[in-house]
Amino acid sequence: MQQSFETVSIDTRGGGIYEFTNKVEQFVGSRSVDTGLLTLFVRHTSCSLLVQENADPDVKTDLQGFFARLVPEGMDWIVHTTEGPDDMPAHIRSALTQTSLSIPVADGRMVLGTWQGIYLFEHRRQPHRRSIAMHLIGD
Amino acid sequence: MQQSFETVSIDTRGGGIYEFTNKVEQFVGSRSVDTGLLTLFVRHTSCSLLVQENADPDVKTDLQGFFARLVPEGMDWIVHTTEGPDDMPAHIRSALTQTSLSIPVADGRMVLGTWQGIYLFEHRRQPHRRSIAMHLIGD
Amino acid sequence: MQQSFETVSIDTRGGGIYEFTNKVEQFVGSRSVDTGLLTLFVRHTSCSLLVQENADPDVKTDLQGFFARLVPEGMDWIVHTTEGPDDMPAHIRSALTQTSLSIPVADGRMVLGTWQGIYLFEHRRQPHRRSIAMHLIGD
Repeated sequence: MQQSFETVSIDTRGGGIYEFTNKVEQFVGSRSVDTGLLTLFVRHTSCSLLVQENADPDVKTDLQGFFARLVPEGMDWIVHTTEGPDDMPAHIRSALTQTSLSIPVADGRMVLGTWQGIYLFEHRRQPHRRSIAMHLIGD
Repeated sequence: MQQSFETVSIDTRGGGIYEFTNKVEQFVGSRSVDTGLLTLFVRHTSCSLLVQENADPDVKTDLQGFFARLVPEGMDWIVHTTEGPDDMPAHIRSALTQTSLSIPVADGRMVLGTWQGIYLFEHRRQPHRRSIAMHLIGD
Repeated sequence: MQQSFETVSIDTRGGGIYEFTNKVEQFVGSRSVDTGLLTLFVRHTSCSLLVQENADPDVKTDLQGFFARLVPEGMDWIVHTTEGPDDMPAHIRSALTQTSLSIPVADGRMVLGTWQGIYLFEHRRQPHRRSIAMHLIGD
């Protein structure tokens, strides 16, 4: 049994959904693990992790559209406004999505479905450098 | 330390919440693992995983009722409509729930609470065969 | 490779967001694991786990405010009302948040970001004793 740990950085250009499946595949593929478990953990509270369809880019557009409507900027009862109007909505959208993802590895590859990609969901308006921890255990 | 990997299939009869706790228990129980970690990963982007109350079936009805109201079909701003009116709402409901679940194993059993069951939450209208990856590590 | 398992109890004073980062740090720190994986699993269906900002307490207030508005008590279509008006909203809020969290461990510590804390999100009105399973694997 062996373990590997690495951090991957994603530079966002503001709010949006950024695929990084290939970076995770490279991490898993560079280790000689046949069966195992891959874990991703996003080290921020205003962006999150998403496994979604990687076929039609309209899916990303609509996901953003939904979260922008469900948790809009400018809700008048918000108290935490010191970091800007997009900050508290970003925390809420993070709470509604996922902070960590666990993906089994079989035959040396993550068992993603045919249409599944791994994404960072950036909830802030400004560009950010985001850090995601990757852990692999297996043999 | 040992590992096991298996895929379980769930045949859905359309939108709904389908318990499969016993299939996961069988997987865990058939391995001689006393302490460990069980991971579930759903290999689709229009259904998700849920740990919920297994006592009163009305809980399932109300969960479905809520998600049908929060993410209804027919939202007029949706762009991704090529796969039918229930497809994009299914992706959104998936993003709002969980793609993977991690459940510790102690004394040879998952540490589920008294009222907790494991469910597949099918978000599409039509029946589907859904595939869930199960990974166990422990000793 | 070694494993540890422990259960931590949190006594809530009713609906709210309760930090227990230090309890998890104590669990991880008391084991001699340099690299590993920490998993948390909440053994209830009316509270959930959250990684959120631990700097400004207003973030917690606003998160509660949002979920109280998104899933209010008194929705007239609810069927499961036998356990009180706050029970079904609690199940729904649980489904919208996280049941398990996976956090890699590196250099003997969880790789939490600077502003990240670990919280129990209590969705019921009354005080409860909540049980969270903690599992650590690594070496």
